[in-house]
Amino acid sequence: MSRDEAPDGERLARIFLTRVLEPGDETAGRWMREHGAEEVARRLRDAGARLPGASERRWAGLRARAEKAEPQRDWTAARETGVRFLCPGGPEWPAQLDDLGDARPIGLWVRGSPALRLWALRSVAVVGARACTEYGAHMAATLAAGLAERGWVVVSGGAYGVDGAAHRGALGAGGATAAVLACGVDRPYPRGHAGLITRIAEQGLVIGELPPGEHPTPSRFIVRNRVIAALTRGTVVVEAAHRSGSLVTARAAQRLGRHTMGVPGPATSRLSAGVHELLRGEAVLVTDAAEVVELVGGMGELAPDRRGPVFPRDLLEPAGRRVLAALPGRGTASAGEIARGAQTSEDDAVGRLYELRSLGFVERHGDGWKLTRQAVTSVRQDHGQC
Amino acid sequence: MSRDEAPDGERLARIFLTRVLEPGDETAGRWMREHGAEEVARRLRDAGARLPGASERRWAGLRARAEKAEPQRDWTAARETGVRFLCPGGPEWPAQLDDLGDARPIGLWVRGSPALRLWALRSVAVVGARACTEYGAHMAATLAAGLAERGWVVVSGGAYGVDGAAHRGALGAGGATAAVLACGVDRPYPRGHAGLITRIAEQGLVIGELPPGEHPTPSRFIVRNRVIAALTRGTVVVEAAHRSGSLVTARAAQRLGRHTMGVPGPATSRLSAGVHELLRGEAVLVTDAAEVVELVGGMGELAPDRRGPVFPRDLLEPAGRRVLAALPGRGTASAGEIARGAQTSEDDAVGRLYELRSLGFVERHGDGWKLTRQAVTSVRQDHGQC
Repeated sequence: MSRDEAPDGERLARIFLTRVLEPGDETAGRWMREHGAEEVARRLRDAGARLPGASERRWAGLRARAEKAEPQRDWTAARETGVRFLCPGGPEWPAQLDDLGDARPIGLWVRGSPALRLWALRSVAVVGARACTEYGAHMAATLAAGLAERGWVVVSGGAYGVDGAAHRGALGAGGATAAVLACGVDRPYPRGHAGLITRIAEQGLVIGELPPGEHPTPSRFIVRNRVIAALTRGTVVVEAAHRSGSLVTARAAQRLGRHTMGVPGPATSRLSAGVHELLRGEAVLVTDAAEVVELVGGMGELAPDRRGPVFPRDLLEPAGRRVLAALPGRGTASAGEIARGAQTSEDDAVGRLYELRSLGFVERHGDGWKLTRQAVTSVRQDHGQC
Repeated sequence: MSRDEAPDGERLARIFLTRVLEPGDETAGRWMREHGAEEVARRLRDAGARLPGASERRWAGLRARAEKAEPQRDWTAARETGVRFLCPGGPEWPAQLDDLGDARPIGLWVRGSPALRLWALRSVAVVGARACTEYGAHMAATLAAGLAERGWVVVSGGAYGVDGAAHRGALGAGGATAAVLACGVDRPYPRGHAGLITRIAEQGLVIGELPPGEHPTPSRFIVRNRVIAALTRGTVVVEAAHRSGSLVTARAAQRLGRHTMGVPGPATSRLSAGVHELLRGEAVLVTDAAEVVELVGGMGELAPDRRGPVFPRDLLEPAGRRVLAALPGRGTASAGEIARGAQTSEDDAVGRLYELRSLGFVERHGDGWKLTRQAVTSVRQDHGQC
């Protein structure tokens, strides 16, 4: 990762473009694919030849934004606040986002230490209505806790209602969670979730396509949903009225070939009507985390082989190797014990453990963590070397 | 129908066999298929050669029952109490029961005036837990009322809970309902539903495989469920715990190629767990009567062609023709008005109207009935002739 290096031209161009272009703009996506991000940035910045598909008026609008953009300053400010910028194809870039084609994010702004690429490998989206019922909040929290206990990362949108309950459920179970925001990652939205989003950034990941300082808009919420859908192995809709934004996420997941799931509710509940609509289509009915994992865990294509590490141990970062070395050869240890052994914070240890989980080295068992059978031998051989 | 005639040999043999054999006995079904009901009855009655597949002990048990059977008396007693006996292949026999193969009922005892064969053409089973929740009772009643309003016959098992709510919902909407009992049709079970079952017999149909006087047993409830499944175009399970009897009905419906549907409920409800199990399989989630009809109405194979009567008007019974003639040439009339016009009781008129509905002559519109567009011309031509 280049978070401590000076940005290269491609990175600086993409940082610039996140300030100028709206997320999900497929015309601009085609420009980047055909001309490269640097050339697109150059034309917008230096009043170069207008690119195809943009009206004169639109081009002028983009040019006006371009004039105000200060990518080098954005980069420096982000670094100072612990925010990094991921470029497509970079080491932490989640390759499944490339399924979005020309609507792929220009880049991702990220707060939080875990490696997004690894976390995304074992992640499930849990989304739903903002104005959810008690039942919806209960189901979101319970599902998220169950997923976290099974070593899955819970991804949601940070909103009130189902999203918040899902994030809290995962955090409460000492698990991993990531919020994908429709605004800058430095600007928690909604305001009432400032504390929650800060906790997510400390213990997990806060992700956004928009550069620091940007506000959410209705259309940004909608296009943000495709990122949640693409990033994860499947999307669970907990409660949603007809025409709810969560159904957009679910339908995007479906189009992307991800699993789409719904939690049933009373047929008399307006807030379950959208979910039932999904369940009358392709979506699978789920009532608990085990059923979710049964479905998403079976998707071999993205799944690391459960029978053993797919990732050479030597390629782990030193911090990850220290956490791995802190696991006992037999039995389980708590995240706190592992953190002490690895001389790091518990939040950092949990993040690393979820990464190691994605790579097949460790498993979660109840409240503790243990080496997988396949990892035991190799770790024993050089225990203490890190 | 032969309800007013002396029974022929086949009929008397089958009446005898309903007293001797248990419903759903496939070995006995094979005997009847291979030797005919009369020959099977003769061997059991007259100590004829033991039939294959019956142990000596079992044969002796059947013989003992046979000695006590008095089919001629059963027939006379039934006729006196308004109960008729339908034989397979007879004019009122619902041909779809033949899908049960050797488990096909030996015959059916029926109380109530509507023609079962016609009613079954447009029927849906609504079944579920006896100890249902308020929600389950509400959904059963609402679905049944909606089905009745759309001209569908609601079939259930007469039990407490979901069954009772479904029957009441249909009756309350002035609609058609049939109860399939696991005992004699003269012996309402459960006792607390004596009033309800009497009302069903007055306004609809009460059906059973067992002859008058027989009691229900746990296994009789289970085998009864296959009749509900086979008789109807689809089965809706409203609430059911894991391993509930209603799931037996649903699975029988599935095996018979009927539509299987489930009403979702809270994932936290034990009484929805069985339904959710079905919905995670082949069953279709439904939340209202329109969704049920959308599914079962599309099954062309048994459906009369909606574009016009499939049944020649001249073949209608005189009573049916009188009811048909009592419908206005334009607009709708209530069942009461039609009954007065046809000089019959409202219950009888409703039964006839549902039969005429099955045949494509009439449609239900809200609380009223009207001629289908296709029926108007032909009825106008000879209005008043009946």
